[in-house]
Formats: sequence, C-alpha cells, structure tokens
Amino acid sequence: MTPVWQCQAVTSASTAGAVRQGSLRELNLAVVLGRIAAADRPPSRAAIAADTGLTRATVSAVVDDLIAGRLVVEAAPEPRAGAGRPARGLRLAADGPAGLGLEVNVDYLAACVVDLTGQVRHHEVHRADLRPLSPADALARLVELAGRARATADRHGLTLAGATLAVPGLVDAHGLVRLAPNLGWREVDVPALLAGHPPLTGTVAGPALTVDNEANLAALGELHATPGTASFLHVSGEIGIGAGIVLDGALFRGVRGWSGELGHVPVDPTGPRCRCGARGCLETYAGQEAVLAAAGLSGADLPADTAARRLADLAGAGDPATLDALRAAGTALGVAVSGVVNLLDLDTVVLGGGYATLAPWLRPPVAAELADRVLTAAWSPVTVRAAALGPESAVVGGAGAVLRRIITRPSDWLGRRE
Amino acid sequence: MTPVWQCQAVTSASTAGAVRQGSLRELNLAVVLGRIAAADRPPSRAAIAADTGLTRATVSAVVDDLIAGRLVVEAAPEPRAGAGRPARGLRLAADGPAGLGLEVNVDYLAACVVDLTGQVRHHEVHRADLRPLSPADALARLVELAGRARATADRHGLTLAGATLAVPGLVDAHGLVRLAPNLGWREVDVPALLAGHPPLTGTVAGPALTVDNEANLAALGELHATPGTASFLHVSGEIGIGAGIVLDGALFRGVRGWSGELGHVPVDPTGPRCRCGARGCLETYAGQEAVLAAAGLSGADLPADTAARRLADLAGAGDPATLDALRAAGTALGVAVSGVVNLLDLDTVVLGGGYATLAPWLRPPVAAELADRVLTAAWSPVTVRAAALGPESAVVGGAGAVLRRIITRPSDWLGRRE
Repeated sequence: MTPVWQCQAVTSASTAGAVRQGSLRELNLAVVLGRIAAADRPPSRAAIAADTGLTRATVSAVVDDLIAGRLVVEAAPEPRAGAGRPARGLRLAADGPAGLGLEVNVDYLAACVVDLTGQVRHHEVHRADLRPLSPADALARLVELAGRARATADRHGLTLAGATLAVPGLVDAHGLVRLAPNLGWREVDVPALLAGHPPLTGTVAGPALTVDNEANLAALGELHATPGTASFLHVSGEIGIGAGIVLDGALFRGVRGWSGELGHVPVDPTGPRCRCGARGCLETYAGQEAVLAAAGLSGADLPADTAARRLADLAGAGDPATLDALRAAGTALGVAVSGVVNLLDLDTVVLGGGYATLAPWLRPPVAAELADRVLTAAWSPVTVRAAALGPESAVVGGAGAVLRRIITRPSDWLGRRE
Repeated sequence: MTPVWQCQAVTSASTAGAVRQGSLRELNLAVVLGRIAAADRPPSRAAIAADTGLTRATVSAVVDDLIAGRLVVEAAPEPRAGAGRPARGLRLAADGPAGLGLEVNVDYLAACVVDLTGQVRHHEVHRADLRPLSPADALARLVELAGRARATADRHGLTLAGATLAVPGLVDAHGLVRLAPNLGWREVDVPALLAGHPPLTGTVAGPALTVDNEANLAALGELHATPGTASFLHVSGEIGIGAGIVLDGALFRGVRGWSGELGHVPVDPTGPRCRCGARGCLETYAGQEAVLAAAGLSGADLPADTAARRLADLAGAGDPATLDALRAAGTALGVAVSGVVNLLDLDTVVLGGGYATLAPWLRPPVAAELADRVLTAAWSPVTVRAAALGPESAVVGGAGAVLRRIITRPSDWLGRRE
C-alpha cells in the first residue's frame, strides 16, 4: 500500500525550486512585491527587511529591480516627529503594467483597463444582442472595444501586460469555449478566432490572452472590490446562473476548471425541464426567464440589468405578482445555496449580477432557507449580501487576474521586458 | 479601491520564512523527505540532488539528519550493469514514528497503528452500541483500545508520533465536538475528557491528539489506499451520510472545518422531515434508516456494515422491495452528488462506508443522474466506484494524517526528539 502522503509529498518536492540559486531571486521579488501590495501604508525598505527576514542589502537590490521594472514607486516621505531623515515608503506603480479585461455576454460586450493600484482607468460597455451573431462576428466587435482600451492605455503611459476574456460558459485550459448555452456557442476556439488581432497580440508577460468563465471572473471582481471577504460564494444571476467560489482569496476552479455551475444544481428532481436537458435545475426557478414569467412579464431575453431593474421597480411599488415571483426565486436559490454551504462550509454568500439589484427581495428567503437547512447555522450564521460591483464585476475581475499574476510572479513580467 | 491581489500577496509574504536561515534547514528537510516519500523506487543521494537543485553536500547532511531521526533508512543496493559501486537508495523507515488512528462511531470503537511506509501494523475493532453510553464512558472504553495499540507499537519498536480520533460529527479546531447527531453528542470536549490518559498523552510531535470528522478521515483513508486518485468526493454511507472532499491530494475542510455535510444537502425541498429539522435532506432518502424502511426491514439502528450486508444479500437474491429501495436511494444520492459535481467539477465519486458494499446496486442510478444532470458530463464523464477500504477507512486515514504531518514538516518531529 502506498502511503497516504505521497501526493502531498510531490507538492512539497515541487517547492524545491525555491532553494535553487536562480529561483531565490524570483522568490525574493515576489515576497517583497507581495509585502508592498498587501501593506495598508507604504512600507520602507527597513520595514520590509524586518518583516521578511531578508537582509537590508537584498531588499534594496530587489526594490531597485522592481522600480526599474515600473512595478513599484517611492512614495513621498511622510513628515515624522522624531529626528533624522524620514524613510521613503514604497507603493505599487500606477503607471506601469495594466490589465485588460474583456467580456462577451449574451447582451453586451465590455472592455476595461485596470492599473496595478486597482484603479479602473477605462471602461466601455457596448449593448447588443449577440445571440444572432456568429462567434467570429461577435469577437470582431470585441476587438474594436479592445483597440479603444489599448489606445487609452497608451495615452496614459500604461503597458497592457495581458488580457482576460470573460465568457458565460465552460472554458477549457486552452481557451476553447466548450459550451456557452445562453449565448448559443459550442466548441468555439476563441484564441484561434482572435489570433492576429493587434490589440490583443501586442501584449507582453505570459499568455497574451486568457479566456475564463464569467462567473469565476465576477467573483474575482468582487474580491477586488471587497478584499476583506477572503472566502465566499458569489452568485451571478443573469439569464443563466453561475457561481464563483473564492477560498482564502483564491478562486476555486475544480479539477478541470469547470466548477461553479450552480444554475444546474437540482432544486427539485421532478421539477420543470431545463435547457440543459435535466429536470428541476435552479435556473428553471430562479433564472431571469423563470422570474419574469412568474411575475407575468415578457422580455425573457432582456439584458440582465434591465430585467432586474424592471423587477425591482415593480417590487418596490408593491406589485404582488412580482413580490411572489421574487420570493419563490429566493426560496429556490436558498435551497441550492444551502446545499453548497452544507458541503463547503462557507460563511458568506454574495448576490451578484442581476441579483445584486434584487437583493432586498431575494435576501430574506435565501437567509430563511440557510437558517433552516444549514447544519451549523445555529452557531455560525451565514452572511448574505449584495455584490459591491454590478454587471462590470467580470470585466474588472478579468483585468485584476492579469495583475494578480504579475504580483505573484513579478519575475515573468521583468523577464519579458529584458 | 484596494487591489484584488491583496489577499494572495499576504500569502506570498508568509512564505518569506522560507528564505530565512533557520527555515532553510526546515525546508530542505521537507524537500528531501518529500522526494523520498514520493519516489516509486528508492532514490540515491545523487538523484535527490539532481531533482531538487540542492548540492550533494546539503543532501548528504539532510539525509544524515533524517536517518538519525529514524525517518529514513538506506535500502539494500540494487545490482547494476555499469562499473563502480552501486548507489544506495533511500526509503521511508518502517520502524520509526507511527500514527495512532482512533474512532468512536455509533456502533463501534476502533484503533489502528500505521507506520511511515503505510503498513497497518495493528487494527482492533470493538463492536457495541455506544448511544446509551455517556461520552466519558465511551471514551474510557476507547482508551483501553488505545492502550493495546500502544503496547503493539512498543513491541515493534515504533514510536507513536500522535493520534487522530474520528468522530461522526462536527468538530471545531480545539477538538470540541459541537454536534454528533447520530451518536447523541452535543458540545463534548473530547480533549478534556481524555486528558491524563497515558496511552494518548505520552505521544510526541505536535498536539498529542487531534479530533476530526469521520467522513473527512475516511476520505483520507481512501487517498491512502488509492493515492493515484488525487481529487474525489468520498461519500460515507452510514446511519448518517457524510462526505470528504479531496482536492489535489489534500482534504478540503471549508472555512471553519465543517465541510462535507452531504447528508443535509436538499434533494426535494418539500420532502420528508429530517432529524436536523429541515425537509427533504439526502439522509431522509438514502440514509440507512430510510433504505431499510423502504426495503420493508426493521433494524434501523443496526451497525452500518451489518445493515449493508443484509441489504446486499437480499438484493443479490433478487428481492424486489430491496432492489426498489436501493434504486430510489441511488437516485436521490445521484441528485445530490450531481449538484456537488456541477459546483466543484470533480471527476471521481467514491462510494464508501456501507455504500461500498451496496455499490453494485447504487452505482447505476448514481451514474444515470450524473449523466443527466452534470453539464460537462458529455465530454468528461464522472467515475463512480466503490471505496477500496471499508469501515476501517476513517481510522486508517486518521493514523495517516499523523504521518502526513511528519512528512510535510519533519523538523517538528526531529525537534521534539532533541
């Protein structure tokens, strides 16, 4: 019998690189940059040395590399009461590398540029029903948005370090969209369709373009906006329902990268037939189409934020059918989310996408199901709250994912520029 | 807005210790021991140096420490064709530290000793209905088993490095059992009740005793037996139903350590009332009591393996009521597990505990629900299989958890002995 710890041991062995000479510089770059990124106020070289156990000389050499690579700048010294010259603090550079976030969704295209300090420097949304378009045509339109985003970045002196494209579907490790049911895409090779488009291929550091699931990136966008909540389930309520699971500040992707299909978690196994072929999936109760129909409204294919605002207006005015529809949707959502919390022991559920707008009506029935169904609810209640970002969450999360790679592996960025 | 990568950056900063002088030795010990543990055949010092990037001198010094600490031994040299003296390979020591696994379950107590090579050197099961006993009385009986396990370890020249106790309930980080519903325990302070018992307190390296959830440890036991399956959902079907989620060879515990409550994932929100107070939990369809009742059998409180064997005998003889009962249980289990797979994207489901015995009848309906309900099933099927270990899985997994800590942090073990 092979020992239980074998797999773990392989992981340990893979950290062996950390002690090699070449990798030591990489590790030190990441440690020092991570320390600067995590700081509440700009730390001095001396403070970094004290925190990390590195020598002052090593910290200074590493900081010089980071400044030369436009990742870090010296902050203006703060006046201080004691004697001596005040130490200069270090902070992330606002005018170095930036991330390009892109999104193709059912009813809009979006692009944004986020700098290393987390500021959104550019954001454009183009509303259009993309379902009638071929994937190639939809992506050709997206390239126009990407071009304008790149022009803004150039104007501000920013260098796009990479791009992340959000798609509402299942994406494999090579950027192939296996299935995006609500967009009508199947086996779409996005990198191949985008190859040769200058606004995307001119980027540096790592793969020029990463394609990822929209719900995953929306969860990263929420983490971006509220970094204090390090573990949560982010539910994106749109025409479809996706979820992003964030654990200890990192996205949980599953074995093949296809986690988070909350919309197809069964709520009632004998319930209505879902688009996916199964019965009683959450989407048949709490997807946009189901909620609008239950409220007696047409417009199943409205943009998610338009539909959510229309429902919120009616609910706010006390329309009984809308209130009933939202109560039923919230209950179904609460049943599905209770299963998730029983399984994963998360303490925070974030209502995102269209659900953010509808949170005042969805939150009470979701919370009631959680209180009833979660085994640990009595001594550790689950927080249910609206997302901080609205529909822009995925595109901001995508740009943030590019920057996150730089912060955790700055040597890749520095190496590319040499 | 604070950048999205802040949390990750904190994690990076916490690896800073790796580059400190004192920690470098710890890291090297773990890297070399991990390399030896993960090897298919005993590697030589030279092979370890080549793999890890460490110098020959460093590897030799580290190996000397590991041999002195009884973690590693030199294997007999293999004959080889070329000239020169054959290199001596290194392997884990069979006669150094060992893990003590303990279990209190509804209808049995168990203890086992596992050595660093993964061999089970001692295993005792004591069958008794423990529900009428107070927690203190149940644990007093367990101490007798622990004493006999310790005596065996002494006789073999093994040193118990620590103990893990499996309990079928929710356990907090301090070993307090918050709730073990099927055992009737609530707020039981296990470490306090066991304090002063020599067979447990005489152990070294780390906390003498760790208390953990039985379903979690059963999943680790399965990983022990089949280390090739690095990510899976292990379902323990007993009087209650628990699950252990293993991701990349490590147990996923959730934010507060209370993950895996699969038994209380809703299958039908308007279904029968569960012991937990909610309606339609999986346990009301696929728990032992429900399956026996549906098959027209009494004995809801039979030991899980007795109940499973009785059901298997009847199903094997073609009893229609039993076949129907197992089909219904398998369908409900499949509905709940489909939700898990849609959410977590796991590719393997292991039927453990009593379900291992019933796998021939449960597997087809579980697989059918997965094929219907998992969005990615068309291009990445999910494997459903019986667990390799039976009811002994949790106790073996508990002993393995002790040894895993030694492999990943050998400096703790070596330090304690100095």
